[in-house]
Amino acid sequence: MKFTVSKEALLEGLQKVQHVVSTRTTLPILSNVLLVAENGRLQLTTTDLDVGITGSVEANIQKEGATTLPAKKLVNIIRELPASEVEVSVDAKNTASIQCGPSFFKIIGLGQDDFPPLPDFDGANEYRIPQQLLLDGLKKTGYAISTDETRYVLNGIYTSFREGKMTLVATDGRRLAMVESDLDFPASQEVDVIIPTKAVQELQRLLGTEGEVLLRLSDSQISFSVGEHLLVSKLIEGNYPNYRQVIPGDSSERVELPREAMLETVRRVSLLSSDKSNSVKLVFGKNSVEVSANSPDVGEAKETLEVPYEGKEMQIAFNPEFMKAPLQNLEEETVYLDLIDEMSPGVVRIDGSFLYVIMPMRVTG
Amino acid sequence: MKFTVSKEALLEGLQKVQHVVSTRTTLPILSNVLLVAENGRLQLTTTDLDVGITGSVEANIQKEGATTLPAKKLVNIIRELPASEVEVSVDAKNTASIQCGPSFFKIIGLGQDDFPPLPDFDGANEYRIPQQLLLDGLKKTGYAISTDETRYVLNGIYTSFREGKMTLVATDGRRLAMVESDLDFPASQEVDVIIPTKAVQELQRLLGTEGEVLLRLSDSQISFSVGEHLLVSKLIEGNYPNYRQVIPGDSSERVELPREAMLETVRRVSLLSSDKSNSVKLVFGKNSVEVSANSPDVGEAKETLEVPYEGKEMQIAFNPEFMKAPLQNLEEETVYLDLIDEMSPGVVRIDGSFLYVIMPMRVTG
Repeated sequence: MKFTVSKEALLEGLQKVQHVVSTRTTLPILSNVLLVAENGRLQLTTTDLDVGITGSVEANIQKEGATTLPAKKLVNIIRELPASEVEVSVDAKNTASIQCGPSFFKIIGLGQDDFPPLPDFDGANEYRIPQQLLLDGLKKTGYAISTDETRYVLNGIYTSFREGKMTLVATDGRRLAMVESDLDFPASQEVDVIIPTKAVQELQRLLGTEGEVLLRLSDSQISFSVGEHLLVSKLIEGNYPNYRQVIPGDSSERVELPREAMLETVRRVSLLSSDKSNSVKLVFGKNSVEVSANSPDVGEAKETLEVPYEGKEMQIAFNPEFMKAPLQNLEEETVYLDLIDEMSPGVVRIDGSFLYVIMPMRVTG
Repeated sequence: MKFTVSKEALLEGLQKVQHVVSTRTTLPILSNVLLVAENGRLQLTTTDLDVGITGSVEANIQKEGATTLPAKKLVNIIRELPASEVEVSVDAKNTASIQCGPSFFKIIGLGQDDFPPLPDFDGANEYRIPQQLLLDGLKKTGYAISTDETRYVLNGIYTSFREGKMTLVATDGRRLAMVESDLDFPASQEVDVIIPTKAVQELQRLLGTEGEVLLRLSDSQISFSVGEHLLVSKLIEGNYPNYRQVIPGDSSERVELPREAMLETVRRVSLLSSDKSNSVKLVFGKNSVEVSANSPDVGEAKETLEVPYEGKEMQIAFNPEFMKAPLQNLEEETVYLDLIDEMSPGVVRIDGSFLYVIMPMRVTG
């Protein structure tokens, strides 16, 4: 196996696949990236057995072949190379020689035969989704995924293809984010799956704002084709909770909030929320919301934001992190906060298909 | 106590003194910054009992007074404030009210009476040093300070005022950096002291490239006046090892190295130095140096750099971190490496007063 490739292309190619590689692995070959040189391209593949990514970069192939090399080491070396043209040759013992300007590296690899193949999706159901739409949906929901490993069904994004809609839901039991979009797919392909966090993160790295992603679904696996890249992942098995029942019904009041100003206010005030209560209090009065927090031995913070509001006076407390998360991940100038009373969940909405349910905390002070 | 101050000035003032504050302290007031408002200035002081810093910023004082407030908290609040004008008033119970635009903060402080005073330097010996000279000297030696707490005399920079020279030395027993500069001071003020690491770090933050620093020395304390700021520190007590005896005598060969290219070569090659040997090998031949490393199960790296060299062929191995450190901290285009043989220490020199002794490692392979 022998090829010449540009440093920049190889580095970019490796960076797209390297995050899958686990540093703690009992199977050494999973620390490696599979390199396959054929048909004028160098294909790069990594897997941790749950998630796998493959992509390719243009290369001048002098001799076709395949090997696997330690991924992190390879990235570190390629990043530091002093020139643009990189010459790689691999011998029968999987030792790679890398030549670039005055630099010469020899790296010991492992045979490609032991590299676990990515799963096959022949005959799987297909869905075509605009990249921008999926990227936007993941961004608006991903931060609400639970990190509590004991609730493994919540460690991913619930993705539902039903009634001409794709619905993305993430929750950790204390807040829930949902995006719903129209999507064309055959009625026979209605299905609900849970895409694990790691796949969601990798997918966000691959997605751009143009073109489509081709999603394929088999019984226990999902794959995403994004341009030159293919991401495959196991699905989370189990029953996702009935999220529809936590979405509150009609609200009594709607507050219009300037997103950025509200984010900054909550960020500032939360500096004085105590570790124990970890809440900020929102008091709505005529055309204003007062955001406040206090921390017994430290002090208190208070800030008033002018907002168009004619509804009844009310107050409610939220975890500041949960309040900040959607404000940080949305792009709209204005968001709406719909409230029923101080004991009922609030709902953040925008002009568009998004909702975010947030549980209130006990109001103190 | 009441004053108005610009957010930017206050933040900059706090940032200059905040690093001294320890988060883990058994004496709560040491987490606080002392604020003294008088004579049109707000003075800010922090101390950990070993090192203390004081500085001041311009402020519009409406009512003179003093208090102490939690330093980290205060910095975090000031940094996030939404406008430029900050109004601070402190009541008799040391509770500070901070008003800035729509934001209001209340922070609970502690009385200034319990704040440990910085030591007094009345009648102490004085030395005047150009800031640029001292900054440069600290930069060229500081990285060689030992971090091994069991060798506490090495946890600082040995600073000697002798024979019209200021000499700065740092070593961790495996490498040693030294800078010597001419300096005017009375012969009666010849002395050697050890300035602890933390003071060295803080001093580097304060020093600029213009003007002088006024250094004062009492029996067990040192102080540095840098513009508006005063840094005081305990000295390390104990006997610094006789560093002169580790500086090798006449070398047999001198190699001229292009500093940046050598740094990059060592950085690249060291990617393949093993955790165990942790060395790079330098082989000097006619007009070239070959830098190489190998790591048994991973691979090897080799790079040849063209350098003007007509001396005898020789090879020597160094710890790559110790080789990189002076190259990173010097600014000269060219550095010299003086060698005796492969078992003797190498010496890095420049055209100027600097030397760096580096112990060789056993050459392998």
